Amino acid sequence: MTDSLRELAQQLQQFANERDWQQFHAPKNLACALVVEAAELLEHFQWLTEDQSRSLDSARHDAVAAEMADVLLYLLQLSNALDVDLVAAAQTKLKTNALKYPVHLARGNSTKYDEL
Amino acid sequence: MTDSLRELAQQLQQFANERDWQQFHAPKNLACALVVEAAELLEHFQWLTEDQSRSLDSARHDAVAAEMADVLLYLLQLSNALDVDLVAAAQTKLKTNALKYPVHLARGNSTKYDEL
Amino acid sequence: MTDSLRELAQQLQQFANERDWQQFHAPKNLACALVVEAAELLEHFQWLTEDQSRSLDSARHDAVAAEMADVLLYLLQLSNALDVDLVAAAQTKLKTNALKYPVHLARGNSTKYDEL
Amino acid sequence: MTDSLRELAQQLQQFANERDWQQFHAPKNLACALVVEAAELLEHFQWLTEDQSRSLDSARHDAVAAEMADVLLYLLQLSNALDVDLVAAAQTKLKTNALKYPVHLARGNSTKYDEL
Repeated sequence: MTDSLRELAQQLQQFANERDWQQFHAPKNLACALVVEAAELLEHFQWLTEDQSRSLDSARHDAVAAEMADVLLYLLQLSNALDVDLVAAAQTKLKTNALKYPVHLARGNSTKYDEL
Repeated sequence: MTDSLRELAQQLQQFANERDWQQFHAPKNLACALVVEAAELLEHFQWLTEDQSRSLDSARHDAVAAEMADVLLYLLQLSNALDVDLVAAAQTKLKTNALKYPVHLARGNSTKYDEL
Repeated sequence: MTDSLRELAQQLQQFANERDWQQFHAPKNLACALVVEAAELLEHFQWLTEDQSRSLDSARHDAVAAEMADVLLYLLQLSNALDVDLVAAAQTKLKTNALKYPVHLARGNSTKYDEL
Repeated sequence: MTDSLRELAQQLQQFANERDWQQFHAPKNLACALVVEAAELLEHFQWLTEDQSRSLDSARHDAVAAEMADVLLYLLQLSNALDVDLVAAAQTKLKTNALKYPVHLARGNSTKYDEL
C-alpha cells in the first residue's frame, strides 16, 4: 500500500484503539458501515439527472467529498481488519478487467453496460 | 493524493477513455456502481456471525479482497469525475472525527455506537 | 396487515422453520440481506439513463420484478422477526409525509428533491 | 396485488401527482431511493450484535419500523412505475425458492448460507 494510504490506515487504527472501539469493528460491522456510507453518498444524487450530477454546486461538492472520505475511511479500516493490501488488490483487478474487456471488443458496443 | 493512488486513478481514466466509456461515467452512475459493489462485499458477511467474519477462510478472504478492490476503483473513478482529492478529504474527516469523539468522552461508553 | 401480505409472511415463516433457518434470521442479518437485494435491483439501472429505465425490455422487466420480490420477501421476514405491521407503519408514514410536504408548498418547487 | 397494498400504491400515486413529482420518479431514481432507505434501516443495526438486534428497545423499534415503511413505500412506487404485481412476483419467487432449497437437502446444512 502507498505511504499516504498506509499512514491513514495507521491513524485509523490508533483512533479506534484510543477509544476502545476495536470491539465494534468486526469485518461484518465495517462492511455494514461501508454500505451505509456509500448510500449516504448516493443520496446526494438520487433525484439529480446525470447531467446535473456532472455540475454540482460548491456546497454539494463539499458534502459529496466528505461522504467519499467516509467510504475510504471504512474501506481502510476493513483492510486493517482483514490484512488486505488495497492497492495491490486494485492492481490485480485492473489486470483482470483489461483481459475481460479488450479494447477492440469493448469499444463502441459497451456490452458491459447493456448485459448485466 | 498519493502517488500510487494517483497512478491507479490515471490508469482508470485511460482504461475508460480507450473503451469510450466516459459517457456512462456520470457521477450519479458511479455512485450507483459504488453502492452495488459495497453491497456485493456485504453479501459475503450477511449470514456470518461477527466472530466468523474475523476468521475468513482463504477463498472467502480473496473474494472479499476483490470486492474491496472494486469499491476502491469506483471511488477513484468518482474522484476523477468530481476532481476530489480523496486523501486530503479523508485527512479533513479524521480531524473532524477527533473533535467530535474526544478520547476522554468516547472511551468506554461508545456513544457513537449506541446513539445513531 | 392485509390478508395476502399476512399469508406471504406466514409462508416465509414456515419456509424458514422447515429448513431450520431461523437461527440465521436475526434482524441484523435480514437488514443486511435487504440492502443486498435492493442493490441487486439497482444494478439493473446503474448504466441506464432515466428514460431508458422507463422503457425496459421484457427480459429486463422480468429480472427487475424478481429482484423486487426478493426485497419484499426480506422486508416481510424482518416484519415477522420484529413484529412490525408493515401496512400500518406505511399508513403512518404517509400521513407524516402529507404534513411535511403540503401540496401548496411542495408543488412546482420540489424542495424535497433539491435540498437533501 | 392485495386490496390494502393496492390502496397504498394508489395513495402514493395521488400524492406524487398532486405535487407534480412524477417527473423525478423514473424507475432508476426510485431504485436509488430504495437502496438509500434500506441502508438507513441497516444503519440502526450496524454496531449491534445479532442478539441485540433481536431485542430492540421501544424507541429503536419505532425508528426501525418507520424505515421499513419507507422501504415499502418506494417499493410500491417502483411497482407503480413499472406496472409490477408485487404479491404475484413474491409468490413466484417463493415457488422458485422451494425448488431450489428442498427441505431434505437444506435442513441442517444451510448450504445457502455457506456457499454464497
